[in-house]
Parts: sequence; structure tokens; C-alpha cells
Amino acid sequence: MTCIERNMDQTSLPLVVVPNCVPSLSEPLMRCLDRFDGKARVQLYASPKDVTDPNELIARCKGADAVIVLGFHVTDEIFEALQPSVRCFAFGGTGIANYVNVPLAKERGVRVTNVRHYGDQSVAEHAVALMFELTKHTGRMNVQMHTSGWPGCDALQLGGRTLGIAGFGGIGRATARIAAGMGMHVLEWSRSSHASEAAAMGVTEVASLEELFDCSDVVSLHMTLSGETEGIVGKDLLARLRPGSMLINTARSQLVGSQALLERLRQGDISAGLDVFDVEPLPDDSPLRALPNVVITPHNAWRTDAASEGIVQQCVRSVLAWIDGEEFNVVV
Amino acid sequence: MTCIERNMDQTSLPLVVVPNCVPSLSEPLMRCLDRFDGKARVQLYASPKDVTDPNELIARCKGADAVIVLGFHVTDEIFEALQPSVRCFAFGGTGIANYVNVPLAKERGVRVTNVRHYGDQSVAEHAVALMFELTKHTGRMNVQMHTSGWPGCDALQLGGRTLGIAGFGGIGRATARIAAGMGMHVLEWSRSSHASEAAAMGVTEVASLEELFDCSDVVSLHMTLSGETEGIVGKDLLARLRPGSMLINTARSQLVGSQALLERLRQGDISAGLDVFDVEPLPDDSPLRALPNVVITPHNAWRTDAASEGIVQQCVRSVLAWIDGEEFNVVV
Repeated sequence: MTCIERNMDQTSLPLVVVPNCVPSLSEPLMRCLDRFDGKARVQLYASPKDVTDPNELIARCKGADAVIVLGFHVTDEIFEALQPSVRCFAFGGTGIANYVNVPLAKERGVRVTNVRHYGDQSVAEHAVALMFELTKHTGRMNVQMHTSGWPGCDALQLGGRTLGIAGFGGIGRATARIAAGMGMHVLEWSRSSHASEAAAMGVTEVASLEELFDCSDVVSLHMTLSGETEGIVGKDLLARLRPGSMLINTARSQLVGSQALLERLRQGDISAGLDVFDVEPLPDDSPLRALPNVVITPHNAWRTDAASEGIVQQCVRSVLAWIDGEEFNVVV
Repeated sequence: MTCIERNMDQTSLPLVVVPNCVPSLSEPLMRCLDRFDGKARVQLYASPKDVTDPNELIARCKGADAVIVLGFHVTDEIFEALQPSVRCFAFGGTGIANYVNVPLAKERGVRVTNVRHYGDQSVAEHAVALMFELTKHTGRMNVQMHTSGWPGCDALQLGGRTLGIAGFGGIGRATARIAAGMGMHVLEWSRSSHASEAAAMGVTEVASLEELFDCSDVVSLHMTLSGETEGIVGKDLLARLRPGSMLINTARSQLVGSQALLERLRQGDISAGLDVFDVEPLPDDSPLRALPNVVITPHNAWRTDAASEGIVQQCVRSVLAWIDGEEFNVVV
């Protein structure tokens, strides 16, 4: 662990602490520490692996006015231990609900910010990478070739096939743009209509999720998880997938009924590319690991250089906005 | 092996033989055998694996008027053994030079045809799949996940990076379209200028191959192999690749100096995605197999359902054109 400090002699400035920072985030963060000059003191704890011990995290944040939250959960224990000093938590992700107790923060008048759309392009690329691995087996052939042999196999072309995008926000649209460049026919369905934006991109809006599953060779999920979308892809929808079709999930596992998906996959006539799971890390005895017709990656879609840069830039901007009495990415 | 026959009782019709046909080609071919009705008798030898024994191939083609050449070489021995009966060889690939002795066929007045652009989209997709595996390790993580663990790793986003396309024919353009949809900046260089077509696609033509290598994060080769392009990517060009950049070759191995590439890769600061090799199948003791910074696949880019369909459709059309005294895809 290394502690990098900036402006620490200017004791009249507020203190910003980053108590846990892995290299992919500490490197872009160190490149923009000068943005705090004249505004804040900074302590950045950089280490090769995430620190999860709450006592260690609390000790590092003692006396901070603002904390940048990267790669750990602000449990209620941590939150309380840092009161009344910490007045701002800048969270380096979008879906904040599991990471900070937002109602508690609101009650105490503590600002909570998040970061938005930082990973749209990266997650869309990963969704397409999963489609490629399912249809072309590029990575599997490469692993075999690094041992021996000449493991050629029949592949599928994506161009000319139909992609159905469920959820047409930032990630869904980025996925649509890549697929359109690939010559795929792109359909989308979303809980609110985006027909005109879709049409402008050459994408066709369909009337229902049922129609999307009926008409697609590949269905890619890009919805946010909420009470209304949890389990939205159940047994009936999965039964609509045509033999040979593919389901891609880079969003949240809980959108899909996990037992229903397992049963559909065990029929052997569809395949799936999954980056998200009900329990993460995926247990070693998960039956998904034994299925030949799934491509599985460890919730890695967001984890790119560009996404890390976006997280860091937005966290820094939201802390500076808080210092200046302005608003940026404010949740409460 | 199965021999499928059609119209064999109509002995006045010319005989078309397909002496070697693996399932990925025999399936689309069987679906269009009716196009020969009233035009030709057909014998189609379907088997799970390629037959390479010349005597067996000669025996199957005895008495044929036209031969559809899929997955074997028409050696001079085979060619001579089939004279004077076979008057047309319809080759199921583009680069015919290694597969049929074209000057000999010309001398004997035997028609030779090939197939064109059938694999543009599939090869372009494979080039992008190699870029994805180099930057995101999707397939490698999947292989590990199927054993155990949670092998997350830092990835790169392709959107925002610069792709340099060397050779702006059908495959180069298909690659450019995919990359543009992905938000990459696309440059191209070709031996003859295509500046206006490039500009219409949002692609920038650069003045030299040197400039292409200087300015790109990823260089993808899409040139045809000829006396003028053999070894065109040598030590000097490879030295121009910036640290962290990638070379993709789905075209022909002989475009690149193999020793120079090996030395550049051993510096460890660039990576490569290769589908083509000097000797194929790649020898088990090839040093490429031991390099961690290459992704290698067994000349598989063209091998998709859509490309197979295109090969079959063009072969059938070129044989029917020969029967009708017309021309389609004629080489000599």
C-alpha cells in the first residue's frame, strides 16, 4: 500500500480521502490530482488489491470531509464511524443502492454522488465480444492453439442476423451502433418508447418483449434492475427463443430467472453469454461452469481503461462541485 | 462418405462432380441441387472430413464434364488424369494460384472459375473478434471460468482508439464499417487511392503505409498477396508500431516478414492477432504458440455459415454459366 498525499500542508482546506484504490483507478486519479490544488487536501491509498477490512477503511478516512468510494461498500457501521466529519460520499459506480445507505445519508444531510454512463461503450463492446465468442470461438481456439494442434471449427456470421436489444438506454444504444456497423438487423424494446431515436439509428422498435424474443437471433439485455424488471425474463420468454439463438446478459443477473435459464440452456438448443451472476464471485460449484453452451466472464464488462478514466473524472468533478457548493451527479 | 446423386438417369446431360464436400458446404449445396435440373447430372460426395488421396479424388471425378473443387488441390497429376473429359473446374475460393495450374488449364482450353467476396463480412468480423480477444480476453476468461475461479482482468476499450486498415478492398471496407460503428477512428492506406469512398464512410486515407503504422493503435492487414505485397510489412514498419499497439492479420502470412514479426513480438510491448501462418497447419513447435502476447486461430476467419452459402451459390452459378455458354467468375 502507498499513501499519496497532496496539499497536506494547507490545513485550512477540506480533506478528501480515497481509502481504497487499485492501479486501474489510481493511475488516472494520480494524473488529475492537480485539480484539487487550492481546493482540497488529498490522501490517496493505492494498493494492488482491494482492501475490505472495515476497521482499516475507517482508520484511513478519519477526519475526512469527503470520501471517494471505489471498490468497497459503505456499510452502516462505516457510515456511522465517520460521522459527523464526512459530509460527502462520491461513489465510483452507477447503481448505488447496495453500496451506500442512501436514506440514512439523506437523513443526516450527507451528500451522495454517483457516476453515470462511464461504461456505456465498454459494456456494449463486451456484449459484442460475448456474441463473437459464442459464434466464432476465437478465444477458445486461441487457448487450444497455445498448446498444440489446429482446432478449426464452423463459425457463424453475425452480419445479416437479427439482434434484439432489451432496454434502450446508453448501453443499449452503444450496442445498437456496433451491431448496425456489423450489418445486423437491430430491434429494440424498452419500457418507455424510443421509436424516433431508434428509427434515426436504423433500429426498429417492437411492441413487446415477447415480440423481441420471437424475432431475434441474439437477444441482449440492457435494462436497469428495479422492482419492475427483476425476473422480467422468465420461463415463458426463454421458451420463445428459437433453436440456435443466443441470450447475452451484461446487465444484472436478477433480470433473468436463474433456474428457468439453467433449464432452457440444458435443452442444448440455445446458448448464452453471461457477465453477471446471482452470486459474485460465481461459486466454483455453479452448474453454469459445466455447460458447454455458455460463455461466462467475471463481471468484467465495465473494467476498461476508458471506463476507469470516466469513473475518476466524474468522482473528482462531483467532489469539487460539492466543495464549490454546486451540484454534479447528486443522488441525495 | 455418402454419394448423393441427382438426374443420373438423364444420360444426355453433362456430369458435374463434387468429389469432396464437408458438411458446412454439403448442406447448402444439397439445398440448391434442383438448380441443376434439366441442365446437368450431379454426383456429390459428402463426408465429415476432407479426402486428400489423389487416386480417390480421380476415381470420383472419372467421366465428369465439370468438377467443383472444394477443400483439395487440383495437382497436375489430378488435372492430367481427368483429361480430356473435365472441361471446367469451379474452385470454391478466391486465390486460385496454389490450387489449380491456371497456365496449364489455359493451354488445354479448360475453364477455371473462382468465387469472390464471399467471405468479406466474415473475415472482417474475425479481424474484430481478434481485436476483442487481445483487448478483453473474453474467450480466455471463459475457458478459465469453466474450470474454476473468478479471473477478472483489466481490459481496453476499442471505441476512441485508432484503427489503421492496410488494403481497402471488400474485407478492408467491411472492417472499417464495424470499427466506425464501434466509435474507432479509422484510417486506411491502399496501393491505389480510394480517398473519396473512404471519406464517404468517415474513413481517412493516409499517404503511406509508414504513416498508417505511425498513427494507429491497431493495424489490420487486408491486402491481397502478390509479388508486390509479399513481405511488405518488414522490420522497419514493425518498428514503427507504438508500445501497446496491435497487429491483426487475417489476410496472408506472407505479407509480413515472419522473423521480423517474431522479433518485434518478443520485445513484448506490442501484441498480434493472427489467423494465417507461413505453414498451415501451424507446426506444433512454432514459437508463436509460446508467446503470451499473440492470439492465434487456425485460418478460420472465412469459415462461417454465410461464407459457405456464398461459396456454394457462386460455384453452382459458375458451372451453370459454363453449361449455358455464358461467363461467371471466369479466371481462364
